Amino acid sequence: MFLVEGYKSVTEFINSGYQVDTVYHTPTIVPKMLNLSRNINFQEISMKDIEKISTLKTPQDVIGLVKIPKWPQLNYNSLKNRFSLVLDNVQDPGNMGTIIRTADWFGIADIICSEDTVDVYNPKVVQATMGSLARVNVHYTSLAQVLPQINLPVFGAMLDGENIYNTGFGTEGLLVMGNEGNGISPDIERLISTKITIPRAGEAESLNVAIATAILCSEIKRNSLK
Amino acid sequence: MFLVEGYKSVTEFINSGYQVDTVYHTPTIVPKMLNLSRNINFQEISMKDIEKISTLKTPQDVIGLVKIPKWPQLNYNSLKNRFSLVLDNVQDPGNMGTIIRTADWFGIADIICSEDTVDVYNPKVVQATMGSLARVNVHYTSLAQVLPQINLPVFGAMLDGENIYNTGFGTEGLLVMGNEGNGISPDIERLISTKITIPRAGEAESLNVAIATAILCSEIKRNSLK
Repeated sequence: MFLVEGYKSVTEFINSGYQVDTVYHTPTIVPKMLNLSRNINFQEISMKDIEKISTLKTPQDVIGLVKIPKWPQLNYNSLKNRFSLVLDNVQDPGNMGTIIRTADWFGIADIICSEDTVDVYNPKVVQATMGSLARVNVHYTSLAQVLPQINLPVFGAMLDGENIYNTGFGTEGLLVMGNEGNGISPDIERLISTKITIPRAGEAESLNVAIATAILCSEIKRNSLK
Repeated sequence: MFLVEGYKSVTEFINSGYQVDTVYHTPTIVPKMLNLSRNINFQEISMKDIEKISTLKTPQDVIGLVKIPKWPQLNYNSLKNRFSLVLDNVQDPGNMGTIIRTADWFGIADIICSEDTVDVYNPKVVQATMGSLARVNVHYTSLAQVLPQINLPVFGAMLDGENIYNTGFGTEGLLVMGNEGNGISPDIERLISTKITIPRAGEAESLNVAIATAILCSEIKRNSLK
């Protein structure tokens, strides 16, 4: 199970396909407010106890304990006619959570992660998704084995690729983002069909990976509207 | 003064217009490696002492103490023929630092902040800029007083504006980004000439402010290349 903190996020998990096991709440929250339907165990506890459970600096008055789902096997056919994200060893929980939130904004349904990518149920990841984790499917797998079996164009964000403003993204594909320090690993780089780059006008050495992901998602979306 | 941590960031401040006062380093770092020129006080100390000074979980072997500069009065004329960022009460240090790093990538030289925006010399901000703070000018001022005096188009990121993919940004202007929870304050909203929105295709309620800033910077850059 994993922790979800805050009224809004807990409500989003209750209204999603996830199974919420227990909701701990202070007397200020009436369980009815949570719009519930399914078998949820509600426990009224003190703010002091919430503080003991919470991983936040400023604990909120509701904490949910949510079951980690058994993800069905990734269905490659379901990835056709749209874009999905591929994360190769993204390590920072804040980046991971922000990427999930951004994917949700742009309507990206699936994120395929290498096995060494940070755990999506890490409380800092869950928090940074701001509830979006309830709506985006996150799969962990061996990218080197799986990518060749998905018959789609593979775009990879690199420092020496084609200018994204001139790239024809088309209407389907995978977008691969690499590790914060090392980028995309050589094993996975070999599987990329188009290397792409966000053109640099200034002097920063690189962009944060969540920032780069968002710029690319926006560019893919804009392209699809042409 | 403020702290800068890590070999790369300290070097960038030494090679910038900032005055580095003292560099604390472990015996593993030879001061000559730092390419120095100006009056810098070098102090070799133990890793234990570095750990006492550091604000990082994993302290690095160099810490610089840098003088907070006296910023010259913002010259409105210098803002013509380009884009600058305006931050209205951005609060999260990680967001602030990431925005500065992103501005540096896109060649944006000036960021104008409301007086209640998070302090740019907060160690978490400095760290998240990854050295870019050495190259981007950050001004604090009363936005309500200053914006009307800068005679440039004012674009504001809102949830109910014009679709950014259809916006003609032109070649100069200000881009206003608001607070994480509350957006742009009503006082500043009145000064916006074009409200713009990143179209949402999914269900996330909002985007992280650093993410939205990056998407808009990219769109402005792409527009300027047409």
